[in-house]
Amino acid sequence: MAKNPEQTSQEPSLLNKKFTRRDMLKTAGAGGVGVLIGASGLGGILSLANAEADHQADKGTDIVSFYGKHQSGIATETQNHLYFVSLDATASNRLELIQLFKDWTEAAARLTKGKPVGDQSPNGFLPPKDTGDAAGLSPSNLTITFGVGPALFVKDGKDRYGLKHKQAKELKDLPAFSLDALEDKWSGGDICIQACADDLQVAFHAVRNLVRIARGKAVIRWAQTGFQRSKQADHGNETPRNLFGFKDGTVNPDVKKARDMNSEVFVTPGSDKDWMVNGSYMVVRRIQMFIEVWDRTTLKEQEKTFGRHRDSGAPLGSQREFDKADFEKKDENGQTVIPAASHMRSAHGEGKQQILRRAYSYADGMDPKTGSFDAGLLFICFQKSPSKQFIPIQERLAKNDKLNEYTVHRGSAIFACLPGIKQGGYIGETLFS
Amino acid sequence: MAKNPEQTSQEPSLLNKKFTRRDMLKTAGAGGVGVLIGASGLGGILSLANAEADHQADKGTDIVSFYGKHQSGIATETQNHLYFVSLDATASNRLELIQLFKDWTEAAARLTKGKPVGDQSPNGFLPPKDTGDAAGLSPSNLTITFGVGPALFVKDGKDRYGLKHKQAKELKDLPAFSLDALEDKWSGGDICIQACADDLQVAFHAVRNLVRIARGKAVIRWAQTGFQRSKQADHGNETPRNLFGFKDGTVNPDVKKARDMNSEVFVTPGSDKDWMVNGSYMVVRRIQMFIEVWDRTTLKEQEKTFGRHRDSGAPLGSQREFDKADFEKKDENGQTVIPAASHMRSAHGEGKQQILRRAYSYADGMDPKTGSFDAGLLFICFQKSPSKQFIPIQERLAKNDKLNEYTVHRGSAIFACLPGIKQGGYIGETLFS
Repeated sequence: MAKNPEQTSQEPSLLNKKFTRRDMLKTAGAGGVGVLIGASGLGGILSLANAEADHQADKGTDIVSFYGKHQSGIATETQNHLYFVSLDATASNRLELIQLFKDWTEAAARLTKGKPVGDQSPNGFLPPKDTGDAAGLSPSNLTITFGVGPALFVKDGKDRYGLKHKQAKELKDLPAFSLDALEDKWSGGDICIQACADDLQVAFHAVRNLVRIARGKAVIRWAQTGFQRSKQADHGNETPRNLFGFKDGTVNPDVKKARDMNSEVFVTPGSDKDWMVNGSYMVVRRIQMFIEVWDRTTLKEQEKTFGRHRDSGAPLGSQREFDKADFEKKDENGQTVIPAASHMRSAHGEGKQQILRRAYSYADGMDPKTGSFDAGLLFICFQKSPSKQFIPIQERLAKNDKLNEYTVHRGSAIFACLPGIKQGGYIGETLFS
Repeated sequence: MAKNPEQTSQEPSLLNKKFTRRDMLKTAGAGGVGVLIGASGLGGILSLANAEADHQADKGTDIVSFYGKHQSGIATETQNHLYFVSLDATASNRLELIQLFKDWTEAAARLTKGKPVGDQSPNGFLPPKDTGDAAGLSPSNLTITFGVGPALFVKDGKDRYGLKHKQAKELKDLPAFSLDALEDKWSGGDICIQACADDLQVAFHAVRNLVRIARGKAVIRWAQTGFQRSKQADHGNETPRNLFGFKDGTVNPDVKKARDMNSEVFVTPGSDKDWMVNGSYMVVRRIQMFIEVWDRTTLKEQEKTFGRHRDSGAPLGSQREFDKADFEKKDENGQTVIPAASHMRSAHGEGKQQILRRAYSYADGMDPKTGSFDAGLLFICFQKSPSKQFIPIQERLAKNDKLNEYTVHRGSAIFACLPGIKQGGYIGETLFS
């Protein structure tokens, strides 16, 4: 995804210095970013905190604002690393759950600025508030995105948190798709936290501290580390490749265009429950990829499977990555150049659905069942209506996609990513109010 | 580890451009690096390939030479990411095994330059030689380090590859240490490949392609992804922190000083079997860290456990990270300021052993047995004599180290990392000749 010049900070000149957590420590207790910048001799008060819809990183600071109309980590340019966690709520009542979201909000706002979640070492006779493993590291474009799953509203028929009447129609477990091989250990969850950053240590530090804050109120259900090529390695110029060696994410709504985002990704007034306005539905699928099998397949077969050329990323029959696919074009044998069963063609269908894909690869050592690599994709996508977007696409893919020979879906979850907030608010306030 | 100005390329001015694999593709078939640079209009012929002992990256190119007196990935400045694989040899005879090392050498030399292992798409009717997932990415300071384990010499009493007479005394399974909780699935192996790079996709791509080349000759036994803070996030200025929030690697031999490296890390003539001269023994331990328990411990207790201050990394009783530890200094109660059972004091012992630590953190989702994070350290160290270096240190640690309350060793392996080679040679040639 390209960077959006319109969405970057309006005051880049004030921000052209990299801050580390160590700089932050020097101003510990002094308060917000404005004060920090003052203390750093740059002068001026910058209200990053109140910026709306400003979730593209400023390259000068590598800070992505936590506050805004929408949560960051959705329209934000994809970072290098992901640490994703799905949690089960164990809070004994609604007030405890609300307090958890308030505590998380405060912590997340600090973490995304590169600050520790609390004073580093206020008193040696207490456990440190922050676990310390990100001390000295820059904010690394950290984004933290919170979502709530269907079971937070009703679980085993119980309305644990008084949320049943708020449940959105779109927020329900995905239907079973043919070929699914889902495992409980990679599926579901009451709450998700998606932490993305250009440094994995920063992303893991964030999740670890947020889970720690949740002690007694939520427990880990499953967790997954993910990566993409680093922006340093390709200068951020190219569409990242998945572990099949193909570019992934070429056809995505333009995160720079508010109109596209509001028609495809973010819930708008009147289209859903009020509390979800400016939120977005996230679908997560843990897709194992049989890379050794794939690697024994001819290039022609690989390209017919995707419907694209491997090297350029262009649709078959075209030259350039962003050329429009010609699904009618026939070869000398009268076959469509882009096979009907190709991944691209199956995903495209009648061209009626779009989703914002924001996937990360994973490589989790060896799969003990097969002795092969346990590797694949943590597929993550955002949309305003799973029933009209992800589900019909996945139904087509499950039925037709040639790529199914080389992949299997091991995990699945759906979350309603809550609307963004202004400073002073808390994530979830529209849901709980 | 700081960068060594003496070991960087002598021709940095020729190399001040970042190449991507795409640039490489443009010169596919044209041959070596000299030609590439010519094709890029920089002029001159640079024989990177013959550079000796030059394993510090040149920041202009992010290429670390694969060739040299020693293998790269040992004295090389630590990269951001690791993909480590341990393999069992299945080659049916010695010649097949030798061919494997020759094929690996050729592939590794290409990969570390940022080139695909073979032509990208020579013929659509064959599987591509390279898996393609690193196309467009820079070399990312990739290093590939090969080692051989004790079982390659004798396994179940069998001399499978005619290597029995070559077995070095130092190359034997580590003794059992008290508190070990080793699991087969994280232990042992006939051969290891350590791939380190600043981009995880590049490191994984390398291992995947090398394992693919080994088809029929070796199979995966276990594999582990690892990370450190990225150099971008702290500007490469600080000692990285482990997941307990403490700096890790402060006391390490100086990789810039050949004398230190030859006395502690690299095998020198007369001290071992001839084939190991300029090689180094690698010990790998997969150490699970109970980070949730640690995080509930007071700062004072944490600092007494390590023997260092968390924030500064200084030895207790000192101010700065690199201050010499004063093990005699007493507090007002007559206790040594650095407790005898602290990790630093236990590791130090009489100060007679040094090892070169080159560890990476891991975060592998949830531990299904406990519901906690499965996180910790893939501890890797290099030395010339495990019996005089790692083993006595680990015996002390297993007996005394307060840190044992918070960690458990789940995996263990030892490998003889082979000497480096000149262009035209192959990794393992001293062993097989």
